[in-house]
Amino acid sequence: MFYIIGLGLGDYKDVTVKGLEIIKQCDRVYLEAYTSILTCGKEALEKFYGKDLIIADRELVEQGADEILVGSDSSNVAFLVVGDPFGATTHTDLVLRAKNRGIKVHVVHNASILNAVGCCGLQLYMFGETVSIPFWTETWQPDSFVDKIFNNYRNQLHTLCLLDIKVKEPTIESLTKKKKEYMPPRFMSVSEAANQLLKIIENRRVKEVPEISSQSLCVGLARVGMDDQKIIVCTLEDMTGIDLGRPLHSLIIVGPSLHPIEEEYLEQFRIRI
Amino acid sequence: MFYIIGLGLGDYKDVTVKGLEIIKQCDRVYLEAYTSILTCGKEALEKFYGKDLIIADRELVEQGADEILVGSDSSNVAFLVVGDPFGATTHTDLVLRAKNRGIKVHVVHNASILNAVGCCGLQLYMFGETVSIPFWTETWQPDSFVDKIFNNYRNQLHTLCLLDIKVKEPTIESLTKKKKEYMPPRFMSVSEAANQLLKIIENRRVKEVPEISSQSLCVGLARVGMDDQKIIVCTLEDMTGIDLGRPLHSLIIVGPSLHPIEEEYLEQFRIRI
Repeated sequence: MFYIIGLGLGDYKDVTVKGLEIIKQCDRVYLEAYTSILTCGKEALEKFYGKDLIIADRELVEQGADEILVGSDSSNVAFLVVGDPFGATTHTDLVLRAKNRGIKVHVVHNASILNAVGCCGLQLYMFGETVSIPFWTETWQPDSFVDKIFNNYRNQLHTLCLLDIKVKEPTIESLTKKKKEYMPPRFMSVSEAANQLLKIIENRRVKEVPEISSQSLCVGLARVGMDDQKIIVCTLEDMTGIDLGRPLHSLIIVGPSLHPIEEEYLEQFRIRI
Repeated sequence: MFYIIGLGLGDYKDVTVKGLEIIKQCDRVYLEAYTSILTCGKEALEKFYGKDLIIADRELVEQGADEILVGSDSSNVAFLVVGDPFGATTHTDLVLRAKNRGIKVHVVHNASILNAVGCCGLQLYMFGETVSIPFWTETWQPDSFVDKIFNNYRNQLHTLCLLDIKVKEPTIESLTKKKKEYMPPRFMSVSEAANQLLKIIENRRVKEVPEISSQSLCVGLARVGMDDQKIIVCTLEDMTGIDLGRPLHSLIIVGPSLHPIEEEYLEQFRIRI
């Protein structure tokens, strides 16, 4: 059996009882480590499970599916994912490859940022399409994601922005080499995201949605579900100066109108600079 | 401390390790039992926790917050919610009431249908606003939720439809009486939802989104995350004849275009009548 198990928000005790029981009886356990990150570290997990973990980076997941799946028709293999198993396309693809080989697949769900973001008090059914904000480079500065934010806003909806993560990204210089060299991990902060958004909005706002501006309300979240979780509510302009500390961060662009409970709940995190 | 703990998709082993540890050391444990349902029953939970559970129905949660919160400044009280704690507005309200009284609140997140729905292979970031389909009565037949489905469709997005649940609803006759009488629990099935949707669409489609019709692709899901989970992909018309068995059911209206992985994944659940 091939098990794909959500670890939840990233602390080792966020695994479900069902997930933990399965992990303990598996012959091989992979830990996916490039679409999100653990807050507790691999060693804490290994100690808690009493098992060695095999790190599955992007290369292994996208090109080494055979290696991951080998033997899972006759033995038990677990593939652990921070958040919920279906948070990233590559995991869906892995399940599909297993099924195509006649391997039985069992999924254990868990919390992901997509629902845990409700902790700021904004109602989950008032969110529109989720967007991802990528790191800009000098030559690649995509801005099409703001159209989705504008569109959600026009439909009276909030937008959850997932902020870019770069883990084990090869350096440009080593892309053509046999031996890849990797950049240090990078995680976009709410202030970087707010800065980038403001730049795009300033360029485009006159002709599009004038209501979204530097004074728009947004919510910065860090380490959701952890003991040191932080939530800040302020204007987009003020968010550019906010430091929420360690990753992971997420940013919400608040819709144009709030339910009284949403408003009261947000107020406890509100800062005015 | 007041703990609000997500139980996940409804089996007793879907609780997280963190959640279970907290429940075991609480003085009073409430089980919210009207916005969703357990698949395993209250007794299985009590046996697993080694604790008696107090059922919190709509009346208690909406009018008896004081009773729930009493003593949670000096002792530990847990409030258990199927899915994630922030799935329903009333839970957010309960957290707010606790905080307003100076009671410390700790949240333990878990999976909810909002992210677990990814199990059908449709990518979560390709979903628009979630809608709820209510039971119609003879005199109350709201249809405004289809506008949200149309809107998502025009934006190339899928729509998750949460189907109505009626648990401990007072009968109309007893509404004015002191002693309330309750209707038996009801859960909307995918076939009921598809029927209702088709009626609305047939009435309106000519002038609105002609692409959404009886031949539109939809996904019916039942008991997501359980061992007897079922997923069926077919046209909206065919869905009216599908019986997915026990609750809970959810319905997805598939957007106009699919990623190749989404298409391949859905195909394994596809039936053609």
